[in-house]
Amino acid sequence: MLTKEEIRDWFIGLQESICSQLEAVDGKGKFISDQWQRSGGGGGITRVIADGNIIEKGGVNFSAVWGKTPEPVLKSIQLDPMDQPDFFATGVSIVLHPFNPMVPIIHMNVRYFEMTNGKWWFGGGIDLTPHYVNAEDARHFHQTLKSICDRHHPSYYPEFKNWADDYFFLKHRKETRGIGGVFFDYLKDDSTFTKEARFNFVRDLGNGLAPLYTHFMKKNGNLPYTEKEKQWQCIRRGRYVEFNLVWDRGTKFGLDTDGRTESILMSLPPQAHWVYNYQAVVGSEEENTLSKLRKGITWI
Amino acid sequence: MLTKEEIRDWFIGLQESICSQLEAVDGKGKFISDQWQRSGGGGGITRVIADGNIIEKGGVNFSAVWGKTPEPVLKSIQLDPMDQPDFFATGVSIVLHPFNPMVPIIHMNVRYFEMTNGKWWFGGGIDLTPHYVNAEDARHFHQTLKSICDRHHPSYYPEFKNWADDYFFLKHRKETRGIGGVFFDYLKDDSTFTKEARFNFVRDLGNGLAPLYTHFMKKNGNLPYTEKEKQWQCIRRGRYVEFNLVWDRGTKFGLDTDGRTESILMSLPPQAHWVYNYQAVVGSEEENTLSKLRKGITWI
Repeated sequence: MLTKEEIRDWFIGLQESICSQLEAVDGKGKFISDQWQRSGGGGGITRVIADGNIIEKGGVNFSAVWGKTPEPVLKSIQLDPMDQPDFFATGVSIVLHPFNPMVPIIHMNVRYFEMTNGKWWFGGGIDLTPHYVNAEDARHFHQTLKSICDRHHPSYYPEFKNWADDYFFLKHRKETRGIGGVFFDYLKDDSTFTKEARFNFVRDLGNGLAPLYTHFMKKNGNLPYTEKEKQWQCIRRGRYVEFNLVWDRGTKFGLDTDGRTESILMSLPPQAHWVYNYQAVVGSEEENTLSKLRKGITWI
Repeated sequence: MLTKEEIRDWFIGLQESICSQLEAVDGKGKFISDQWQRSGGGGGITRVIADGNIIEKGGVNFSAVWGKTPEPVLKSIQLDPMDQPDFFATGVSIVLHPFNPMVPIIHMNVRYFEMTNGKWWFGGGIDLTPHYVNAEDARHFHQTLKSICDRHHPSYYPEFKNWADDYFFLKHRKETRGIGGVFFDYLKDDSTFTKEARFNFVRDLGNGLAPLYTHFMKKNGNLPYTEKEKQWQCIRRGRYVEFNLVWDRGTKFGLDTDGRTESILMSLPPQAHWVYNYQAVVGSEEENTLSKLRKGITWI
């Protein structure tokens, strides 16, 4: 039976592998590494890159933490109030903000959670936030995710794609963060899946991140762009901040439970702009992008 | 007995008065005006200024809304579950972001809430967020608030100053938003205060905002500053975004209850920066400011 140590060690390797691949394609930016300890148990390795050729700011974080299960988690899984198990959680979280507005922002999280009462599950997801939605790039992104999912179960892509549409949604703007991707949580073993099968899927997805993103870095990283497009990028980054600080459960959970703030907030962009009541010009690329920020679009 | 219409009309006049005073001192920026309707009842007037001589971005919002009392409000006041009163709420909210990092950010909210079961209360506050804490300015700000409070009750300033320290606090950073000010809520009538006495205090405070802020505009609006100081301002603005989106109850309430997003988020700065693990230089003015962002400081 797969142990939490084996899963943790695989995540440590994933972090290293992703950083190497991104550095190789960026050609200039280098990840720094900060180790940190959590007072309640465990800690992590935060790796951050800034001012590369293509990546302006990004983080690839590993953590493995344990201790008393936080109240919000206990509530969310509806345990018997007498049952107060400890928890163990490990995973890798990534957000990358490029300089060039033609390169999308990417986010991935893959995680494993277990409790001393024997319950365990995997969760995670990958989603893409293009500053300008491009049909070909969107198709490539979703097709790649679908191919990974299909290797594990035909229900994965349709189910997790819808889940991403619902999760990466700014209710106060009535718009999705970007073009979605996949999102899943509480993946356990059952009559269809063993623990190994669930882990194989998570590994396959985790391994898929760097090839996916370096594809966009290489394809779009040197495209020309205007000052106006850079301004638009800053406005879209503002929306990214709004999602992460208002709606993202992982961020909320981290900030509520006294996590390491600088690691949690590595997801925020280098700059963001807010313009009162900004309206995209009718018929513009910006308006086209806004029209695509909704749930239920079939990208493939 | 003071009616909700009289209070609402006074707030409309306050909005107008504050906008005029700010425009007169700014000398360039003009407030635009957007009227909006709320589908559940009521609406507001959002007034926004941008690219003035001194004010870079700001809003002075009036609203008067009514209808079914939102669930979070019913919970917060612990009513009998059988009691489902409608509500009426009116108030003025202000946030001003200056160009010059030597001019502080200011925020004020004054509001009146009543329910069809006869309960009513006033709430509000003013707090100052200097990019660089300056002892003389901090003293002037707190002394002015104390003078206003003292005209109404000797307990007001000490009580509301502590409440502001607790409220305007970024738990995840373990720092206050700025140098605080006053914050209060649920001000009702009792053996000491009539409704008129509570309203007189709120009026006095509301009228105090423009003279307080124009003092800083005139005193500091033309001070020289460096590119490094402008960068620091952008980092402090990032903290302002974090407070408003993660901790501010008014913002959360508005976004949760389908308020007008562009009016609620007028409080966000024109730009904000996030730098991973930014550390102020030992002995610098930035470090001095950080050392002052804590609760319990006596500024007078």
